[in-house]
Amino acid sequence: MITEIASSELPAGDAALLDALNGAYAAALDSQNWQGWIDLFTPDCSYAVYSLENVDAGLPLGYMIDDRHERLVDRVKFITEVWATTIEAYRTRHGIPRVATTRDADGTYRVRANVLVGYTESNGTPGMLVCGYYDDVVRMTADGPRFVRRTVYLDGTPARYLAYPL
Amino acid sequence: MITEIASSELPAGDAALLDALNGAYAAALDSQNWQGWIDLFTPDCSYAVYSLENVDAGLPLGYMIDDRHERLVDRVKFITEVWATTIEAYRTRHGIPRVATTRDADGTYRVRANVLVGYTESNGTPGMLVCGYYDDVVRMTADGPRFVRRTVYLDGTPARYLAYPL
Amino acid sequence: MITEIASSELPAGDAALLDALNGAYAAALDSQNWQGWIDLFTPDCSYAVYSLENVDAGLPLGYMIDDRHERLVDRVKFITEVWATTIEAYRTRHGIPRVATTRDADGTYRVRANVLVGYTESNGTPGMLVCGYYDDVVRMTADGPRFVRRTVYLDGTPARYLAYPL
Repeated sequence: MITEIASSELPAGDAALLDALNGAYAAALDSQNWQGWIDLFTPDCSYAVYSLENVDAGLPLGYMIDDRHERLVDRVKFITEVWATTIEAYRTRHGIPRVATTRDADGTYRVRANVLVGYTESNGTPGMLVCGYYDDVVRMTADGPRFVRRTVYLDGTPARYLAYPL
Repeated sequence: MITEIASSELPAGDAALLDALNGAYAAALDSQNWQGWIDLFTPDCSYAVYSLENVDAGLPLGYMIDDRHERLVDRVKFITEVWATTIEAYRTRHGIPRVATTRDADGTYRVRANVLVGYTESNGTPGMLVCGYYDDVVRMTADGPRFVRRTVYLDGTPARYLAYPL
Repeated sequence: MITEIASSELPAGDAALLDALNGAYAAALDSQNWQGWIDLFTPDCSYAVYSLENVDAGLPLGYMIDDRHERLVDRVKFITEVWATTIEAYRTRHGIPRVATTRDADGTYRVRANVLVGYTESNGTPGMLVCGYYDDVVRMTADGPRFVRRTVYLDGTPARYLAYPL
C-alpha cells in the first residue's frame, strides 16, 4: 500500500543506494549525459512515459514506449543525430523524492518517486515542465542498483514538447 | 535553532522513518487516498494551514484548522461527498524536503520540512500550487511515525482555491 | 563521473550530515536568517552564482562572486542595511536534492545537488525563481559539515532580480 511506511524495513544501505540511483538519474539527464542515462538501466529493461489522462481512460498511448534496451539506444541516437539540428533545446532540472518502497521476495525493489521537473528554454526564465511520478522496478546488481523498469506517469500535459527522456 | 544541523544526533533509522513518513504523506495526498492521509495522524492530532501573511500580521485566520482527529474525517467527507460534484478537480505532486529535526526529551520529534506542490488542472500544463513549509510534531508509534501536529505555513496565495489538504 | 553512484561508498552517517547541511542551508535562507547562512561556510570559503549561459560561452561574469568569507558578511550587510528600504522583498523556498557525491583523499566531499527555488512576492501566487545546481566542496568540521566552496549554476534567467543569495 502506498501509505505503508515500508522504508522502516529497508536496510539503510539499500535506501541510500535507491536515493543515489535517482540522484544519478537526475544528474545524467540534466547534464544531457545520455550514455550515463542508458547505463542506469539493466540489459532487460523497459522505459515508458504515459499521461495519467490516458491511463485513466484505458488508452494505451504513451509519450515514449521503449520496450527494450535497444530502444533507449535508439532514443539517444535520435536526440544526438537525427533530431540534432531541429530540436529546440531546453535545460531540465529534476527533483525526484522517493515516496514509497517495497522489497519483493527475490530482493528486487518496487519504488515510487514523485517527479517535478523545472526547465528553461533559450536562457529564459524557468518554469515547470512536468509533474508526475515514477513507478519503478529496481534490481541490485554488482555495479549498483539499476532500473529493470521505469515508468513515468504525467499529471497533465508537458509545458512544451518533450525532446528528451524524463 | 534552524541552522543547527541537529540531524547529526538523529539515529539513522529514525531519520529514514521521518523521511518515509513525508513520502507516505505525499503519496497518499497525490493519489487522493484520503483514508491513507488520515491514517498518518495520531488519534490526538491537529492539522492546520495558515498563510505567513496572516501569521506575520498576528491574525488567527487559516485556510484549514482541524483541531482534532474528527475534523480530518469531516474534511474527507466534504471532499468525497459534500463537494464531490462541485469541486473543480486537480492533481497535486508534493516535494517535501526535510530541513531541520530536533528530538524532545520524551522521544517526540519536532520536524521542519519545506514543501513545493506542483499541480495540474483538466489535464493542462503544470504549475506551482503553493510553496511553504511544514512545522510538525511526530511521535514514534508501534505502527511507525505519525503526526501529532502538522501545521502548514504558506508563502503567499495558492495558485487556485484549495479543495484538498496539503 | 556524474552517473557513478558514489554514495554506495559513503558512510551512512556522512550522507545524513550532507543532507542535513543542505536542509539547514535551505532553512536559513528561506527564513532570511542571514547569520545562519554565513555560519554554514568555513572561514576560508568562497560562494558564487553563475549562469550556465555565461559558463558555456566562457564568460567570467557572475550574479554573485564572494571570493572570501568577508564578502558574505558584506552581502548580508547590503541586504539588511544598505538595500533595506529599496529591495522589493520576496519569500523563497528551496528544494535541494543531492545528486552526486564523491570523497577526496583528504576526507573533503565534492557534492552536487540540484536546486529548484519557488518564490512569492507581495503575498501573490507562487512561481519558480530559478532552476540549476550546486557544485560544492564540503569539509567535515568539529561543528559539523561546512561549505568550503559553494558554486551555483543557473539554468537560465531568474524570474526576477536576485536580492538574496541562493
